[in-house]
Amino acid sequence: MSVTSPQGFRAAGVAAGIKASGALDVAVVVNDGPPDRRAAAAVFTPNRFAAAPVVWCRSVLAQTVPVAVVLNSGGANACTGARGTADAAATAEHAAQALTSATPEASLDGLGRNGVLVCSTGLIGEHLPMASLLAGVSDAIGHLSEEGGEQAARAIMTTDTRPKTVELTAAGGRYTIGGMAKGAGMLAPALATMLAVITTDAVVAQSSLGPMLARAVDATFNRIDSDGCQSTNDTVILLASGASGHAPDPREFEEALTDACADLARELIADAEGAEHDIAIAVRGATTQTAALEVARAIARSNLVKTAIYGRDPNWGRILSQVGTVPEATAPFDPTAIDLAINGVPLVTAGAPDAERSQVDLSARDVAIDIDLHAGPAEATLLTNDLTHGYVEENSAYST
Amino acid sequence: MSVTSPQGFRAAGVAAGIKASGALDVAVVVNDGPPDRRAAAAVFTPNRFAAAPVVWCRSVLAQTVPVAVVLNSGGANACTGARGTADAAATAEHAAQALTSATPEASLDGLGRNGVLVCSTGLIGEHLPMASLLAGVSDAIGHLSEEGGEQAARAIMTTDTRPKTVELTAAGGRYTIGGMAKGAGMLAPALATMLAVITTDAVVAQSSLGPMLARAVDATFNRIDSDGCQSTNDTVILLASGASGHAPDPREFEEALTDACADLARELIADAEGAEHDIAIAVRGATTQTAALEVARAIARSNLVKTAIYGRDPNWGRILSQVGTVPEATAPFDPTAIDLAINGVPLVTAGAPDAERSQVDLSARDVAIDIDLHAGPAEATLLTNDLTHGYVEENSAYST
Repeated sequence: MSVTSPQGFRAAGVAAGIKASGALDVAVVVNDGPPDRRAAAAVFTPNRFAAAPVVWCRSVLAQTVPVAVVLNSGGANACTGARGTADAAATAEHAAQALTSATPEASLDGLGRNGVLVCSTGLIGEHLPMASLLAGVSDAIGHLSEEGGEQAARAIMTTDTRPKTVELTAAGGRYTIGGMAKGAGMLAPALATMLAVITTDAVVAQSSLGPMLARAVDATFNRIDSDGCQSTNDTVILLASGASGHAPDPREFEEALTDACADLARELIADAEGAEHDIAIAVRGATTQTAALEVARAIARSNLVKTAIYGRDPNWGRILSQVGTVPEATAPFDPTAIDLAINGVPLVTAGAPDAERSQVDLSARDVAIDIDLHAGPAEATLLTNDLTHGYVEENSAYST
Repeated sequence: MSVTSPQGFRAAGVAAGIKASGALDVAVVVNDGPPDRRAAAAVFTPNRFAAAPVVWCRSVLAQTVPVAVVLNSGGANACTGARGTADAAATAEHAAQALTSATPEASLDGLGRNGVLVCSTGLIGEHLPMASLLAGVSDAIGHLSEEGGEQAARAIMTTDTRPKTVELTAAGGRYTIGGMAKGAGMLAPALATMLAVITTDAVVAQSSLGPMLARAVDATFNRIDSDGCQSTNDTVILLASGASGHAPDPREFEEALTDACADLARELIADAEGAEHDIAIAVRGATTQTAALEVARAIARSNLVKTAIYGRDPNWGRILSQVGTVPEATAPFDPTAIDLAINGVPLVTAGAPDAERSQVDLSARDVAIDIDLHAGPAEATLLTNDLTHGYVEENSAYST
């Protein structure tokens, strides 16, 4: 499973020496689908210091339907000025040339640098070692295969402890969605650290791909929040090859796409740096979904809540205190009506203490925080994790 | 130095057994100034789950000029429902009666429960042990003295490692401002964990006291942000006795008051839970002071920035990445114009890498992060601290 699960894709992951460790650090994914059926879309970080590759990708997608993605770990190419911009373009140029010469079939005829997306992840503010990177791109292109998805998924890892991939078949096996993602810290909206490439062999109209991806991302990757930090490089790319020949019902395709994104999102939060608990914060009874999300996010952002969960302490006062910081204009509710449960134990009912906190067992990895605002019909669930010594260690002892 | 430094105040701190440790946990401060000169004002948390004592104080200040404050540590009396409301009122009632019988002078004649402010700090969601608390209030009132300020400052500590007090004389010694504060976690705007009582023997009009305190708090306590968490109990109280007979120029008094608040704020951040670095984030070149503050706050709230500083890693990419999360509508600036320095080393100039990060020495406790947005004339400085193993330990191993 991974980006090569659907038909019409090749991928590879190689070690180009960008990472000092010698681990895999360059990946290439190519869409070999019929030229008239290929489609592509992407969602990017809203960070105002968007990295050079993000700026490059936005420009590409405004002009053409790109057919390949080059990804590197070991350096983010963010906050690198004009030289960083040139490096991103040079990477795409190099990949386009190498792909054209390495692909005898007509499918990549006429490929220029505008057909290649570029993604980078790693330390911000350092220039990429271009000689190593370009040699790695050539190497990866020489190793492209329909079994290369797993290696590609490994090549984009940074502090991830394991690769994240997904494979999902739909419509009775008539088409497949595959994908890979990386991200372990800086998990926050919008988007979450995070690079992801999702592929499908379904036939999907280019015009509908962007809106569908945006909605799928909003309901999945934007509902995980590890440490509240938003990256300069977050990118989710969707490539459709059309190679299955099956054109699914758009609504059914969007559901399957959302499922695939949700699967990758869960893998990301489960591998968040140092995390020992996966916390699902469900807020219902809100006036709007935005209100529910803002309340959930206030809880997910609290270091006091996250350290308490780490310490297996069902300290609900820290949770209510965070709920109380959400402005009334954002989330109207009556503080004396709120219910709060942890792992199903009703600790607060109608704004007052209810069950004893000693009834809550926080020894399992999964933790459920349930809030009912009793103010309306809307609800939302956000995934986060605890704040541990492991997080502090990983982010203080290493420059990432 | 402390709340009894100015003339016309008595205070005491006693151990009432609310804290299991047996440490001091109840404080009383009394304003013995001439009845026609006494004035009082306060600023409270905007948290929607404001604790019962906060609700009590707001009601008192809307009706009268209170002359005494009862403070307890060991329990926050927050999210405690109707019983918590009754407990706060009963504490004020008990203190008013005990003070009237214990004070032969006419200065407290007619004192009712509406003349007594109540503050609590500690665990949220537990009822106060009222028998112990009321006995402690009686005990403290029996020990009131003009030298009691230090004991009072100790009695309001929770996870503080040391008491925080201030003494400041102004107008060539013609009047004095004193104060005490507590707070170590939950340091965030508006207000910071935090209980503070500030006293002065200056003659200040009741009508001007509130606005002056609000401005002083905004420029000091609201400019510290330790862990982004806002408490249910934050309270800053200012009592004026008028006992010096000196009525200072209002502008000069506000400056002195702001200095006293700034001193206490610095003490709070320097004693933040587990902190090993005090970080001053100065943002200049902003279009408005709000814009400067929002940029500074985005940096101060980043666990990735705070763990990097803990690890003595001048990882400026994490800082710029946070600056980039501030919406353009909030803080307009050109990302390619920004300058960033840490401890005076210009790491980023005009949005691109400048000096080598190895030039930055983060071994000292004080860290200066300087940002110039080059977008306008406004500036603001926010104080925060690093995120350490000590913070995680203190907040995961203990229920606070």
